Amino acid sequence: MRLASSGTSRRSKVKDMSAEVVDSNPYSRLMALQRMGIVENYERIRDFSVAIVGIGGVGSVAAEMLTRCGIGRLLLYDYDTVELANMNRLFFRPDQVGMMKTDAAAQTLTDINPDVILESYSLNITTVKGYEVFLESLKRKNSKQDRQSSAGTAGVDLVLSCVDNYEARMVVNQACNELKQTWMESGVSEDAVSGHIQLLIPGETACFACAPPLVVASGIDERTLKREGVCAASLPTTMGVVAGLLIQNALKFLLKFGQVSPYLGYNSLKDYFPSMEMRPNPQCSNSACLERQKEYLQAKPARDALAKEKMEAEASLRSECPLHVDNEWNISVVDDSEEGTSNHIEASGTLPDGLTRELPTADKYEEALATGGTNLVANDDFDLVELQRQLDALNAS
Amino acid sequence: MRLASSGTSRRSKVKDMSAEVVDSNPYSRLMALQRMGIVENYERIRDFSVAIVGIGGVGSVAAEMLTRCGIGRLLLYDYDTVELANMNRLFFRPDQVGMMKTDAAAQTLTDINPDVILESYSLNITTVKGYEVFLESLKRKNSKQDRQSSAGTAGVDLVLSCVDNYEARMVVNQACNELKQTWMESGVSEDAVSGHIQLLIPGETACFACAPPLVVASGIDERTLKREGVCAASLPTTMGVVAGLLIQNALKFLLKFGQVSPYLGYNSLKDYFPSMEMRPNPQCSNSACLERQKEYLQAKPARDALAKEKMEAEASLRSECPLHVDNEWNISVVDDSEEGTSNHIEASGTLPDGLTRELPTADKYEEALATGGTNLVANDDFDLVELQRQLDALNAS
Repeated sequence: MRLASSGTSRRSKVKDMSAEVVDSNPYSRLMALQRMGIVENYERIRDFSVAIVGIGGVGSVAAEMLTRCGIGRLLLYDYDTVELANMNRLFFRPDQVGMMKTDAAAQTLTDINPDVILESYSLNITTVKGYEVFLESLKRKNSKQDRQSSAGTAGVDLVLSCVDNYEARMVVNQACNELKQTWMESGVSEDAVSGHIQLLIPGETACFACAPPLVVASGIDERTLKREGVCAASLPTTMGVVAGLLIQNALKFLLKFGQVSPYLGYNSLKDYFPSMEMRPNPQCSNSACLERQKEYLQAKPARDALAKEKMEAEASLRSECPLHVDNEWNISVVDDSEEGTSNHIEASGTLPDGLTRELPTADKYEEALATGGTNLVANDDFDLVELQRQLDALNAS
Repeated sequence: MRLASSGTSRRSKVKDMSAEVVDSNPYSRLMALQRMGIVENYERIRDFSVAIVGIGGVGSVAAEMLTRCGIGRLLLYDYDTVELANMNRLFFRPDQVGMMKTDAAAQTLTDINPDVILESYSLNITTVKGYEVFLESLKRKNSKQDRQSSAGTAGVDLVLSCVDNYEARMVVNQACNELKQTWMESGVSEDAVSGHIQLLIPGETACFACAPPLVVASGIDERTLKREGVCAASLPTTMGVVAGLLIQNALKFLLKFGQVSPYLGYNSLKDYFPSMEMRPNPQCSNSACLERQKEYLQAKPARDALAKEKMEAEASLRSECPLHVDNEWNISVVDDSEEGTSNHIEASGTLPDGLTRELPTADKYEEALATGGTNLVANDDFDLVELQRQLDALNAS
């Protein structure tokens, strides 16, 4: 484990994450996720340890994102050095050429956020010695942190694979199957225009050996790709998108919000994002995977009972304390689909699912500005005076 | 226009982009896009000028991606300073706190790639004076570059809007409608978990005033968002993904590969990516937009004739020189769906469109390694000996 600093001026450590809205607070925009109802307890992020294997085009950006989010502890693994040929991806700088990637990353990340505990491992996990150190480092719990979150045998909460070859992925797979460790895999195609992320929970989902790995087809002639001696292409865009999707799903997994994608592909030529789920293979060649599958099946009755209990508790909570009181004033939320029905049919058309209008039409916006009014959400079907009358009555009662 | 350097060691400028595969070549992985058949002429990127309005969470990452891709000229606009509260997004560093965002960006970007011509404008485009300078800077052509690519009145090839408010977007819209300038708009929601990008071609697509802007619904109670005085949340992940999608589409537009998305949304809670197209509104409130619409309609016969000509030329080229000779040996590409039909049904299942297997099943991979064989693509339905016989016969004839 090595730590380094570039020696430039840094911000001082912060003891607690504050939600105070001031320019000098590095966590204000993250703590706002709580106030907005996205995350229940953002500060929990400081309890988590994440291991990133491979600090290349995806791994380095993933590490920077977690660092800026204020992750508790970050374990970095790579055996490569920074080269000028890496400058077409984000993160590393020309003045770091020749440094170990792990050291260069630790230097930059400590400067960005000194609150994060960084452990940098310059080793090759596919060697016997490297695998041993890798496995031990994943098991080691950090005494400085509250380790209640990790109930298993592992000392980390999530492993992220950001390596660029099949062999290294199989080694991460082996380690995580042995340690019952949830991990996420990521990859970018050799032609630089597609990529994917995948969630792997030993025993519950397919492991990396259960089925041939999936790639997102780019539609380009595959024979061009497979030619011997051709150097792989890469783009900061594809790698940035894959790193972003990976860490977004890591945050959803750790902080328990949204839905974690089991598999998400990215075809950048068509902006197409295929998704799917993969169950474990009962004939998997990995024996640790088969053990995890057996355990998962054996734990089914307990899991079902817990789920039932949770559902009943939630149901009784709902009946005791309704989220909204009875709507005796008939106040209803404005229906977006009724907006702009007059002369904007051509431009507005029918919106696909999941899209809503952010603002009223430009005409109405300018009209409102001209009259000095603030009722920007008003439309023909919405009587503001009547609503005000109802609200006044409500307050008076 | 100001240029700054952080004073750390930098790489020297490169005269021509080389495709040589050596560690010291910063462009090798980008030039590989040509060899792989993705981009016809990658080096053309040096001819392009791109303006980025708003150097915040999306704009700064967008600027870094274009810089690392070796864009010719980058024009940066912002009037804000770097704060610690910005550290939860990528790009800016704590030691840059207090600097103008444009100056801090120019400093970092010059260090990363001295080949890019940087122009940094610290101004507010929504003021009368700011708009004037903005408009003039977009018109100015750069004598150092080959400006053949830009046929219109503008001196830039693309404008990227990375601002965080409606008023600034309307100003970019006005400028681009006036200058007949194609631009792309980007945005991230106040709750930090969704975003979008949009392509706007004056006269051809809807302009920003043609219809109310679209946002991707996150499914979170909107009333929480709209409360007064609540500071907006932000995440490096969402902003990194939006910047990546934006610049990927900018590259597709400039270097003519793949399909440029007219509108692409990103709902990070569900990893859902809605897309759609928007035609211009004949009753648009923006008069410059109406002028561009008229011009676009008037140019239709010429456009149709050109398209027909191009189609006929391509058709005659195809008939003269067929891409593949007649398949007299009945050699066919292996059908992926026929792979792993024996004992991997559970784990493999049916693949959604656009997904293919990267490698054969893990069993077969290990089997091949054990026997020292290299026929990793072989499966039961694929007779390698027979194929070799056919190929030999083909070569002998």
